[in-house]
Amino acid sequence: MNDLTPSPDDKFSFGLWTVGWQGVDVFGPASRELLDPVEATYTLAELGASAVTLHDDDLLPDEGQRDATLERFEKALSDTGLAVEMVTTNLFSHPVFKEGALTANNLQVRRYALSKVLRNVDLAASLGAKTFVLWGGREGAEHGAGKDVQAALDRYAESLNLLCAYVREQGYDIRFALEPKPNEPRGDILLPTIGHALALISELDEPRMVGLNPEVGHEEMAGLNFAQGISQALWHDKLFHVDLNGQHGPRFDQDLRFGAGNLRGAFWTVDALLGGGTTNAYDGYIHFDYKPPRAEAMDGVWDSARSCMRNYLALRDRVQAFRADPDVHAALDAAEVATLRTPTLADGESLADLRAATYDVDGLARRSVGMEALDQLALEHLMGLR
Amino acid sequence: MNDLTPSPDDKFSFGLWTVGWQGVDVFGPASRELLDPVEATYTLAELGASAVTLHDDDLLPDEGQRDATLERFEKALSDTGLAVEMVTTNLFSHPVFKEGALTANNLQVRRYALSKVLRNVDLAASLGAKTFVLWGGREGAEHGAGKDVQAALDRYAESLNLLCAYVREQGYDIRFALEPKPNEPRGDILLPTIGHALALISELDEPRMVGLNPEVGHEEMAGLNFAQGISQALWHDKLFHVDLNGQHGPRFDQDLRFGAGNLRGAFWTVDALLGGGTTNAYDGYIHFDYKPPRAEAMDGVWDSARSCMRNYLALRDRVQAFRADPDVHAALDAAEVATLRTPTLADGESLADLRAATYDVDGLARRSVGMEALDQLALEHLMGLR
Amino acid sequence: MNDLTPSPDDKFSFGLWTVGWQGVDVFGPASRELLDPVEATYTLAELGASAVTLHDDDLLPDEGQRDATLERFEKALSDTGLAVEMVTTNLFSHPVFKEGALTANNLQVRRYALSKVLRNVDLAASLGAKTFVLWGGREGAEHGAGKDVQAALDRYAESLNLLCAYVREQGYDIRFALEPKPNEPRGDILLPTIGHALALISELDEPRMVGLNPEVGHEEMAGLNFAQGISQALWHDKLFHVDLNGQHGPRFDQDLRFGAGNLRGAFWTVDALLGGGTTNAYDGYIHFDYKPPRAEAMDGVWDSARSCMRNYLALRDRVQAFRADPDVHAALDAAEVATLRTPTLADGESLADLRAATYDVDGLARRSVGMEALDQLALEHLMGLR
Amino acid sequence: MNDLTPSPDDKFSFGLWTVGWQGVDVFGPASRELLDPVEATYTLAELGASAVTLHDDDLLPDEGQRDATLERFEKALSDTGLAVEMVTTNLFSHPVFKEGALTANNLQVRRYALSKVLRNVDLAASLGAKTFVLWGGREGAEHGAGKDVQAALDRYAESLNLLCAYVREQGYDIRFALEPKPNEPRGDILLPTIGHALALISELDEPRMVGLNPEVGHEEMAGLNFAQGISQALWHDKLFHVDLNGQHGPRFDQDLRFGAGNLRGAFWTVDALLGGGTTNAYDGYIHFDYKPPRAEAMDGVWDSARSCMRNYLALRDRVQAFRADPDVHAALDAAEVATLRTPTLADGESLADLRAATYDVDGLARRSVGMEALDQLALEHLMGLR
Repeated sequence: MNDLTPSPDDKFSFGLWTVGWQGVDVFGPASRELLDPVEATYTLAELGASAVTLHDDDLLPDEGQRDATLERFEKALSDTGLAVEMVTTNLFSHPVFKEGALTANNLQVRRYALSKVLRNVDLAASLGAKTFVLWGGREGAEHGAGKDVQAALDRYAESLNLLCAYVREQGYDIRFALEPKPNEPRGDILLPTIGHALALISELDEPRMVGLNPEVGHEEMAGLNFAQGISQALWHDKLFHVDLNGQHGPRFDQDLRFGAGNLRGAFWTVDALLGGGTTNAYDGYIHFDYKPPRAEAMDGVWDSARSCMRNYLALRDRVQAFRADPDVHAALDAAEVATLRTPTLADGESLADLRAATYDVDGLARRSVGMEALDQLALEHLMGLR
Repeated sequence: MNDLTPSPDDKFSFGLWTVGWQGVDVFGPASRELLDPVEATYTLAELGASAVTLHDDDLLPDEGQRDATLERFEKALSDTGLAVEMVTTNLFSHPVFKEGALTANNLQVRRYALSKVLRNVDLAASLGAKTFVLWGGREGAEHGAGKDVQAALDRYAESLNLLCAYVREQGYDIRFALEPKPNEPRGDILLPTIGHALALISELDEPRMVGLNPEVGHEEMAGLNFAQGISQALWHDKLFHVDLNGQHGPRFDQDLRFGAGNLRGAFWTVDALLGGGTTNAYDGYIHFDYKPPRAEAMDGVWDSARSCMRNYLALRDRVQAFRADPDVHAALDAAEVATLRTPTLADGESLADLRAATYDVDGLARRSVGMEALDQLALEHLMGLR
Repeated sequence: MNDLTPSPDDKFSFGLWTVGWQGVDVFGPASRELLDPVEATYTLAELGASAVTLHDDDLLPDEGQRDATLERFEKALSDTGLAVEMVTTNLFSHPVFKEGALTANNLQVRRYALSKVLRNVDLAASLGAKTFVLWGGREGAEHGAGKDVQAALDRYAESLNLLCAYVREQGYDIRFALEPKPNEPRGDILLPTIGHALALISELDEPRMVGLNPEVGHEEMAGLNFAQGISQALWHDKLFHVDLNGQHGPRFDQDLRFGAGNLRGAFWTVDALLGGGTTNAYDGYIHFDYKPPRAEAMDGVWDSARSCMRNYLALRDRVQAFRADPDVHAALDAAEVATLRTPTLADGESLADLRAATYDVDGLARRSVGMEALDQLALEHLMGLR
Repeated sequence: MNDLTPSPDDKFSFGLWTVGWQGVDVFGPASRELLDPVEATYTLAELGASAVTLHDDDLLPDEGQRDATLERFEKALSDTGLAVEMVTTNLFSHPVFKEGALTANNLQVRRYALSKVLRNVDLAASLGAKTFVLWGGREGAEHGAGKDVQAALDRYAESLNLLCAYVREQGYDIRFALEPKPNEPRGDILLPTIGHALALISELDEPRMVGLNPEVGHEEMAGLNFAQGISQALWHDKLFHVDLNGQHGPRFDQDLRFGAGNLRGAFWTVDALLGGGTTNAYDGYIHFDYKPPRAEAMDGVWDSARSCMRNYLALRDRVQAFRADPDVHAALDAAEVATLRTPTLADGESLADLRAATYDVDGLARRSVGMEALDQLALEHLMGLR
């Protein structure tokens, strides 16, 4: 086992809103005092983070203090060497967005939302962020008739096209990343999964400028396999960013620290980020988007932040040991995993050739697939048994 | 309330495997005797169906009887006037496909699977079917390492590209429709939702030839809103076919008759098929893919088939009355639903103009959205209270 | 269809916190202004409610205003004729309860929680409420080691035993009703379902004084059938109270108005409350515990409250018509539903007799059960088609 | 890490139907040949099991071979030293039970079901089994009107009362264990969770003779925490038996090998069986009820059986190391876990005393609960990091 101390090469990143969450939920008010985002930046640096990310409202809730806060924040970045790798806009807290933002039925709300995004794209550029995330938490509906879904997708696409054109005009080095979620706070949110967001992107004017920021818990809320989801995103070259956290399947958005919740899912998530059985790996920041449970005091906040990184490092070690183990190589061979990279139709072969071939159907039906044995090796690596 | 008797204009279609399901499940063997598919065709015609659909194995399980059965079946089609509107291949029952078919790790299995599809594309063409469905029920994995997801998507795309090329070469008038499902029988199935399948299609050589066949229960197993999902598919011009049935959320695939399960979802599904608040409607067959519960004897089988159609007609009446009601028009106006079709940036306006505008944020935050009132009108139409 | 105007005989009741919910959630602050609970009481009376219910914190958040507010509230009750049929204590909002209340690990918190309940039992008695609800929203854990579940159940039982003894000592005419919920806001809540709470009650000193207040959405969050659940509660004579609302299966607690969400479930819920096929019916208040969606302004709040009652009345009409329909009687006979009331062993018969009998197993296996036909009749009554 | 080789003291037990499952599901026929149950017994003994369990139909499907098979089976038990620790009756496969068994609407079916159970109780006694499991997989309904739930519970209770009386009369040393499940194969099954079954038992004539056989996956299909569930069962002294396997939350019944699925849940399950933070532990057999995935050939069947035991032993080691770790003791103290065993009302204290006390509510609200730190220790033990 390697040392589990974070280093800059690990590219760990935290949203300021994560450690800054005060514990307000539907059933109760804040349980923790306001955490100054600049102080949080210093502390995250001490813990080993390489970058922070933010919504405008996390850092700059008070228009009157904007310049002074930005100055303090930039000093903190300079003092600590932290980057701002991603910026996003809060389009979900203010009640003006109660019925949507970029896809609100009300035209003025949509215009205001778009102007808020534009302002923050400028902020992102000025802070050097290369990724701009859009999470449409209030874009959706509780009911069938209130939202014309096809029109809403038109407006989503319009906004993204306008934003891409703006970034290109300004010469910013920024890409957009959509963050899907199936529900909560709206009954049903538009672009509910990785797949739906990928599909939308394929219809945009400049699909290369827009990718995804999938979040572990959001896919697992729909019972979907996150590692499989980000593997598809990687296949489309669309995994621009990632939100790591923990969840226990279909229920409310738990936002547990990474490693809590579905641990085996976390192992395969790290494996997928590292490229798994293929060479198409993720090379961006390892970003944690979680909420320290409301019951914790500030000691628990920092404990949980530390654990996110520690768990990632431990899982990465376990995954690397798994992928390096000769017994695993043998088991992968027995399961014919690499064979799937071979085209089904051989080079130069015709479909008529393929149809003319004979197949030992009953023999193939009886073949060993060896996947239980392979999976057990993975489980034993995860548990440190090998 | 109109007459609820099916007519040919309603374009009702049934899979032969629906009424033919004998009740085999994980916990018990058949509870009903084998139903001759040709007899089923006559009975479905009597009940009011306009078309049937089939897997090769539904109609032609016995190679030795193939010609004789086809002859009997074609006579039944001719006698009844039924069409075969869709054909699909069974790539999931035979244990040769136990670990996948078009994306099996084993090369010979993939080749055999592709040859089986090709043979059935010929059958589809000979029967006049215009839609060829591919449901990949065994394409997936229970575990993380056994399936290289990126390679599997390569193979899925390869197969679809080969199939499209074949159809084009043969001059067949056939389009392909992918049927997503999140899980069952595999732990996690590739292309788990409408969105993931749409995304794959965008990467194909001939995306116009491939669309979707979404199934109500499959999306609801992931907690997703089916009406919203098919609306997105319509937005992409990809709703080539549809499978209607009933489900009670995330659990095993119930395949209840249409109308059972999530009734309000069924109302909005019919509304979405009819184009909802927009003009982009579905114009294909209304296809039922359900299973009469294992407890039922043959009387229950035919009762449930009858009810699928009757429920669709009843819901269609309710939806049409809802959309025609002047009070609904007023409520839609109050909720500003149609306003969402207005572009956010006005013609000739610049983003600078939009940013320079002032917004009454607090006033907008207090506005009435009127969606509870609108939804209540829908509920009252559904219940026949108006 | 009868008139759908509420009358006092309908015994409709609302929590003051329902229409008073200001829209605070994890992702945003209040979207509606504070609603004076005394004003809410007058308005609910105008809409047709017969009673209100309350947490201490709903009515009396300000200790300094306690007497004055109580006086105004009692005047409102007197002016309107409304009853306070149920009172409950808020043991979940204040951060002192962040890690539990009656089962907090911290002894002082448990003591404070118990003292808060006792004070409100006195309030309940003074207001004439006959039911005292306990919802333990923060009683639970996110993790395995933090909560000793067996000790927690000891403390739950201790508290309930102390409360029952207190009520008996004081001579109050009050019964306690536990409200189960599987999760949210805690990761896993103790007594997660109707069943778990019934089981706990069976171990108490005075089980007759404690029953249940099940909530539609809470059971449906676990994918459970609410009508079936309250039927079991009725079977145990434990349905002391009920919380009606709407939900879309396993996801966050939606608290939709009654009738929204799972409409067929709502039909069977009303049927179960009315006694269904048996005589053991519910005779308490019809209590709505829902949240008007955050997007709504005050017009939507009152619209949704009105709709809860209207939907209950409409569903009650539909259920009564279903139960009175001769075709339904015939279908129930065909499905042998009433036969289930016949003891399996006949009076005077021995098990040896039963074992000596012969059974036509294959004939019974082939029998018609007629449940699809029966269910279709229910669906048609629900939709007003008959 | 201790040796992970099973020994008789580990009391591992397997259902004959687990390794014997041939892979039949709703979507396909058998993928594996019939496994002779007597051969399976020998192999399970070799792998390290101490006992087997069975349904009548697993061992004795053929009435004509009954005596001969029993003789061969008893020889295998004698040769291997294996016990038959539990017996159960198959009341779900034969279509005679398609609409229920002990709670079928049809009286003859109920009587036949009861006679089948009685016959197997005799078999259980003759084989020396001390536990008799009842899983009511077909006891339930897809629809609301077809099943009178209150009458069904009457019949369930009647059957259990008759069975208890029979066992008492015969002088058998047998206890009954109910196995709850929320759904599948029926739409909604009676006694859907641990809680509902516990509640029923409290109403029986001889509640001491009836307890539970909870199954990991069945509770997790309802999104419930299994460790918490069996802890409640232990609290009621009702954990008579247990079914270990793996599941990925609300979806079809996956029956994965123990350790696959929710690994952290498995850690806490083992901890709960060992008594967790309390002394009330489980002392019965460690019984695996899982299905080797259909894709596996016989090598995968035996691999998966071996892994069930190996994973249990590894998790037991991890749990014991966690409970022995001084850092964990300190973290448990910091989280005040043991304090929950202290009664809330002190000995000799009155409720008036408790109410008269003053509480530092704001100070308590700010206290550290230290649960993230504690949970991280558990996770690190699970992963072998400490």
